[in-house]
Amino acid sequence: MEVAAHGDAMEIKRQLVDAIRMLAAADIVDHSGHGSVRRDSRSFYVNSGASTRAALTTDDIVAVDLNGNLVDGSARPPLEFHIHSEIYRAREDVHAVLHTHPRWSTLLTMVGEPYKVVYAQGALLGAIPLLDSPLSVNTKPMGEKVASTLGAHPAILLKSHGAVIVGSNMLECFALAAYLEENACRQYMAMQIGTPYVFSDNERDMFRERLWTENLFRKTWDHYYSKLHHS
Amino acid sequence: MEVAAHGDAMEIKRQLVDAIRMLAAADIVDHSGHGSVRRDSRSFYVNSGASTRAALTTDDIVAVDLNGNLVDGSARPPLEFHIHSEIYRAREDVHAVLHTHPRWSTLLTMVGEPYKVVYAQGALLGAIPLLDSPLSVNTKPMGEKVASTLGAHPAILLKSHGAVIVGSNMLECFALAAYLEENACRQYMAMQIGTPYVFSDNERDMFRERLWTENLFRKTWDHYYSKLHHS
Amino acid sequence: MEVAAHGDAMEIKRQLVDAIRMLAAADIVDHSGHGSVRRDSRSFYVNSGASTRAALTTDDIVAVDLNGNLVDGSARPPLEFHIHSEIYRAREDVHAVLHTHPRWSTLLTMVGEPYKVVYAQGALLGAIPLLDSPLSVNTKPMGEKVASTLGAHPAILLKSHGAVIVGSNMLECFALAAYLEENACRQYMAMQIGTPYVFSDNERDMFRERLWTENLFRKTWDHYYSKLHHS
Amino acid sequence: MEVAAHGDAMEIKRQLVDAIRMLAAADIVDHSGHGSVRRDSRSFYVNSGASTRAALTTDDIVAVDLNGNLVDGSARPPLEFHIHSEIYRAREDVHAVLHTHPRWSTLLTMVGEPYKVVYAQGALLGAIPLLDSPLSVNTKPMGEKVASTLGAHPAILLKSHGAVIVGSNMLECFALAAYLEENACRQYMAMQIGTPYVFSDNERDMFRERLWTENLFRKTWDHYYSKLHHS
Repeated sequence: MEVAAHGDAMEIKRQLVDAIRMLAAADIVDHSGHGSVRRDSRSFYVNSGASTRAALTTDDIVAVDLNGNLVDGSARPPLEFHIHSEIYRAREDVHAVLHTHPRWSTLLTMVGEPYKVVYAQGALLGAIPLLDSPLSVNTKPMGEKVASTLGAHPAILLKSHGAVIVGSNMLECFALAAYLEENACRQYMAMQIGTPYVFSDNERDMFRERLWTENLFRKTWDHYYSKLHHS
Repeated sequence: MEVAAHGDAMEIKRQLVDAIRMLAAADIVDHSGHGSVRRDSRSFYVNSGASTRAALTTDDIVAVDLNGNLVDGSARPPLEFHIHSEIYRAREDVHAVLHTHPRWSTLLTMVGEPYKVVYAQGALLGAIPLLDSPLSVNTKPMGEKVASTLGAHPAILLKSHGAVIVGSNMLECFALAAYLEENACRQYMAMQIGTPYVFSDNERDMFRERLWTENLFRKTWDHYYSKLHHS
Repeated sequence: MEVAAHGDAMEIKRQLVDAIRMLAAADIVDHSGHGSVRRDSRSFYVNSGASTRAALTTDDIVAVDLNGNLVDGSARPPLEFHIHSEIYRAREDVHAVLHTHPRWSTLLTMVGEPYKVVYAQGALLGAIPLLDSPLSVNTKPMGEKVASTLGAHPAILLKSHGAVIVGSNMLECFALAAYLEENACRQYMAMQIGTPYVFSDNERDMFRERLWTENLFRKTWDHYYSKLHHS
Repeated sequence: MEVAAHGDAMEIKRQLVDAIRMLAAADIVDHSGHGSVRRDSRSFYVNSGASTRAALTTDDIVAVDLNGNLVDGSARPPLEFHIHSEIYRAREDVHAVLHTHPRWSTLLTMVGEPYKVVYAQGALLGAIPLLDSPLSVNTKPMGEKVASTLGAHPAILLKSHGAVIVGSNMLECFALAAYLEENACRQYMAMQIGTPYVFSDNERDMFRERLWTENLFRKTWDHYYSKLHHS
């Protein structure tokens, strides 16, 4: 599914807003996470730096070029827009980026424990590279380092800081952000009472092949969305 | 109580919907759990694979035969319908099946810790067999393996994956699913600060005899139901 | 404050209902806890065994004599009414009893860890005796054992089962039930990362003297009550 | 931003009420925390001792002089008003004080574990001095000890009791109270599975310089405020 190609700007903004609100409701985004959707080869939509994540509206979405200059809207993008711009520059296949501050995933990085696949949906992330610095990604060189460490992976962890997840569209990106945190939570919890079983390469490959479907991504999205509206 | 015998189809669907919604609200079912109620010797009701569990309605319930062919409704059953069909085939006494993704019970399986009875209602489950594979139960042979491992027990754990609970009706099945998770939670939590007291065989038998009553199952159902409507 | 003396029956029932609903909302009472208020020297009010705790109303309150015979209302008292009757028989000073199933306090008993005072309000409980059996208190001899183990204390823990808290009125009884669980929670949590500081006898006595006030009990009640109505 | 100078009394009270209600919703304040805003060199606004924190209104705010004598309103200030009065006496730069009972920060003090900077916003607190006594601060000498131990720091921890946070205005004070608890939570959680990475002095200084901005404080406030209104 290519959201950007089929939707108009308002629909894209609406989906970006929903993704961030669902992540805030799930405590995967706190007061300062951000998400973006590619607008074209040289610009992207992103929530403004000052926006209230848990109460986000489409008015909080601006569009900036790959140098962070506003091309639509008047509020400033987040200081860490370099995460988005440098990934869009490096990865033509990426049309959505989420920068989250997820509790469980980050706890693993705080103690030097690598992410391991311990649950089916977690296989979709595979091995996740780590940026070994807690500093903010608020310069172009830092953004470039995030992009080069990410390489062709779907996600990267930032030590004692957070995560960056990418996708070919926002539905996929959102689902991966949720699976990353759910797998990390189970890994952390199991570590408290023993050594968690790590999926074999074969098991991991089987799940990746079977579960990487728009149907599952949409079901995950709908599950979180239903919680948003009932809470 | 034989729900299927006394209720009409809509009442059965309503009860199935309520059970899944209560389990989703309690985080025992996530975006992809499923439940079923036997319809007759050759078919059963089940929520569709694409349905949003936390916002389920009776329109999401379909009926399929033991080979997964639709006999009522138009949406597809879950890919793991084999869990239900093979158990209904093997166990005439079973009229309700729940496949949950419970956090605490699954954590025990992730570290190789067997379920132990550490709390009164947990005695109703007794020793719980384990299917030693994290793979999905999406083939007939896998379903047969679940059924044969289950044997005459009320529940089975699937390593790093989830649980299957059966009952002579949905009220009983739901209550057992709740007790399984509550007992596993206490077992896990106690393991973090010491070694939990495991009920003696005598204590276990006394509780099983005294607590296996429709009254308690209904009280448990009503307790969860009241939370659903107040949240 | 002597609630029973100044209030009429409906006010007493109302307060009992509120106490149980607040404890259910705080997960200190589950589907089968119960509470009572003394009616006179030979009877007490108690929620019926079948009542839904989280949605309790004054219609769920019955009155029974010290042998469990109904003197007001038509629903059956809990099977464990002996907890209440035997304490009222043994302790003239007690006018309210709560039987809770608190998570944290019970976890301590599961691993043989005694309750220790680690937080100011926890000093009001002091040392808490333990009934060393997980069995239900559903006979007169078991009720007598609870009463004799309780002695002159304000609370008793039941191994792998729950707690019983008593008070000269329901406000005091409720506040003590909340403090017991809050102290146990902190004790458990601290044990996971070290050895918690236990208050000296002197500190304990100072807090007991200063904090045992109707003002504090009412403030605690109001705090939980405000959460009940805003949730 | 100098709230007191620009706002009128009602606006100051409103902000104080919001801060305490947000902290109560986040379980950082329980039934007995309190907050204050400086009124002038010799008096301050504070919530009354008997007020219900989770349902606070501006009617619960009184003004007292530095000896605790009422200068506005009729309800009594908290018994621990000495925390506020002695800090206002000692620190001219302080215009807002919060006394919280935060779970995670307090757990660290219970086991003798010092607060360490393990997360970006946690750097704003730096090293936090400890008052090595669990007793209430309900005398002038105890208040003076809190003020002298606090020195020029933005916060102090009280062993097995709670925290005191100060700020040049309530927005800053609230944000620091939230960051303290969030950092302590991560420190505690990471300790359960390993040894958390502690920020280097250089990293700490960089974050303190970059993050100490009214923009971030306001965004944090708005984030918590949005949760208050949606819950």
